[in-house]
Amino acid sequence: MSTAAAYAVNSADGRFEKTTIQRRDLLPHDVLIDIRYSGICHSDIHTARNEWHGTRYPCVPGHEIAGIVAEVGSAVTRHKVGDRVGVGVMVDSCGRCEFCLAGEEQYCANGNTMTYNGAVPEELQAGGYTLGGYSSQVVVTENFVVSIPEGLGLDQAAPLLCAGITLYSPLRYWNAGPGKRVAVVGMGGLGHVGVKLAAAMGAEVTVLSQSLSKQEDGRRFGARHYYATSERQTFKDLRNHFDLILNTVAADLPINNYMRLLKTNGTLVMLGLPDSALTVQPFTLSNNRRSLSGSTIGSVAETQEMLNFCAEHGIGPEIETITADRIDEAYDRVVASDVRYRFVIDAVTF
Amino acid sequence: MSTAAAYAVNSADGRFEKTTIQRRDLLPHDVLIDIRYSGICHSDIHTARNEWHGTRYPCVPGHEIAGIVAEVGSAVTRHKVGDRVGVGVMVDSCGRCEFCLAGEEQYCANGNTMTYNGAVPEELQAGGYTLGGYSSQVVVTENFVVSIPEGLGLDQAAPLLCAGITLYSPLRYWNAGPGKRVAVVGMGGLGHVGVKLAAAMGAEVTVLSQSLSKQEDGRRFGARHYYATSERQTFKDLRNHFDLILNTVAADLPINNYMRLLKTNGTLVMLGLPDSALTVQPFTLSNNRRSLSGSTIGSVAETQEMLNFCAEHGIGPEIETITADRIDEAYDRVVASDVRYRFVIDAVTF
Repeated sequence: MSTAAAYAVNSADGRFEKTTIQRRDLLPHDVLIDIRYSGICHSDIHTARNEWHGTRYPCVPGHEIAGIVAEVGSAVTRHKVGDRVGVGVMVDSCGRCEFCLAGEEQYCANGNTMTYNGAVPEELQAGGYTLGGYSSQVVVTENFVVSIPEGLGLDQAAPLLCAGITLYSPLRYWNAGPGKRVAVVGMGGLGHVGVKLAAAMGAEVTVLSQSLSKQEDGRRFGARHYYATSERQTFKDLRNHFDLILNTVAADLPINNYMRLLKTNGTLVMLGLPDSALTVQPFTLSNNRRSLSGSTIGSVAETQEMLNFCAEHGIGPEIETITADRIDEAYDRVVASDVRYRFVIDAVTF
Repeated sequence: MSTAAAYAVNSADGRFEKTTIQRRDLLPHDVLIDIRYSGICHSDIHTARNEWHGTRYPCVPGHEIAGIVAEVGSAVTRHKVGDRVGVGVMVDSCGRCEFCLAGEEQYCANGNTMTYNGAVPEELQAGGYTLGGYSSQVVVTENFVVSIPEGLGLDQAAPLLCAGITLYSPLRYWNAGPGKRVAVVGMGGLGHVGVKLAAAMGAEVTVLSQSLSKQEDGRRFGARHYYATSERQTFKDLRNHFDLILNTVAADLPINNYMRLLKTNGTLVMLGLPDSALTVQPFTLSNNRRSLSGSTIGSVAETQEMLNFCAEHGIGPEIETITADRIDEAYDRVVASDVRYRFVIDAVTF
């Protein structure tokens, strides 16, 4: 066992406190990573505050991890000491099911292991559940460690490992590209990366945001059009218009109004997940062969592809870097949508 | 103008009565068809009884029309006198929009013309709206008339023109075939054709029916498996199982239970359309990249392809042929699910 510094929360209404945690000794395929940056994702907040239930405390969130390889196990071939690497939402999967074998381990039929609050044997993580990236070091099996290409800063790379892949995967799966009209609903931590990625893929991107307050940013990120969803006229002007709508908003939206913005054969993908059920009019689906779908992150290989794509196109998230003692404050600001556009914790301060 | 015998209903709660209607003189691209058989579709009942609102009376339903070409306009090239032909749910579309140009006129952006109760200029149909196939003759522009291949009886062909294409199109669009597990929910007029088509395409077909009462039929039609949805165990046994589920039931089903039967990347297609909205849990979509979709009939070209496919594979609907004076009785029996499996009216009796 080795020890690492970490920031943990001890109850649903607790505050983050500095602590020391244990990381396992390296197994043959393990990689020890010195964490440099750790992004803050809205899922971290849901979990730390037990809003999705089932949180085990002390909880160390963090699944947007970027750092440098410090040590490798005896059988590691994919990474070497000194490599710039990242870890996203998963740290393992069964490796044997249909989906793992097809390289889609995010849909592992036996349930993959989440980077934090995921059940694991005691020998893999003291306590029996995973502790995430709000920490100075982490140990991860090599197949779930991606390479961060030169030209992409480690601070920039961190949020791509969840926010980036969450948008990249559905854009690829539903064929965003030249000649396709893509709408991104909500321009926050997820949405703003979606705008950049879809624009870089060559799609005609429209932002559908509550107001026009971030319009200038949106256009700078690559959006061709920007509409306020507080305006009724938006839903008239854009009817039957989009091939793909990515909804990054977790709030309860009038989903049929958005579905009607899809043209024939179009798909609306839920990425922000409201607590409540969606109420869908069946005729809205059938009259134009529209689909309502969902998507969860992406595979490890697709995450690597996404990082390479970002490096190649010179894109990354807009970040605000904070010290570890400001996590609680950052959480409150994320909930209040008061961040442009993603917080990243400087791991030197763990 | 020419006259034709027809059966019409004069109000939402009226009964069918024999009457005489007018059909237009042939325009250059028109085809006059002597109708031989006319299928009864549940949509006919919804429209005749004004359950979807907007029905204009007198109403002559019928959009599963099979007959013989009696006369052709001066410019007709696709059909000739004596040809065995059919007409389905549409008799025209704009011909200029993106979808018409792509050969998907069922999704015409400007609204296609329905075979009955569709608005048309007075000169195309006296009264200003279309009158359907419960009639001795009909006049339709040649592009919306399909050929009925030899080997497929006209009585068999009739229900294929709506029920057949409604199932065939989504099976093709979502790639039903060898190695794919397809479920058909409901084994009525639509569902039983879906079982035959999907089995002929090589898919592994499962029927999900309220009870096992039609199990023997289902297996005869090509279903490999047959489950009762009244049994809770069905929803446990088949979890994450299907690539494609075609829901032909118009009643309000517990849709999330069915969505969970889809494996990753699977799609549930609504074909039977309940009046009420669907209540969908967003996590059910995202956790496995599942889709909830709809589909409406198919294009004219796809309808032709479907008829050829049925002739080639020797499949057709199970029908009960009736005389025109029994339409009201047949409607009541359709509503009571008391038909195995589709009524066809012998047009000699119009």
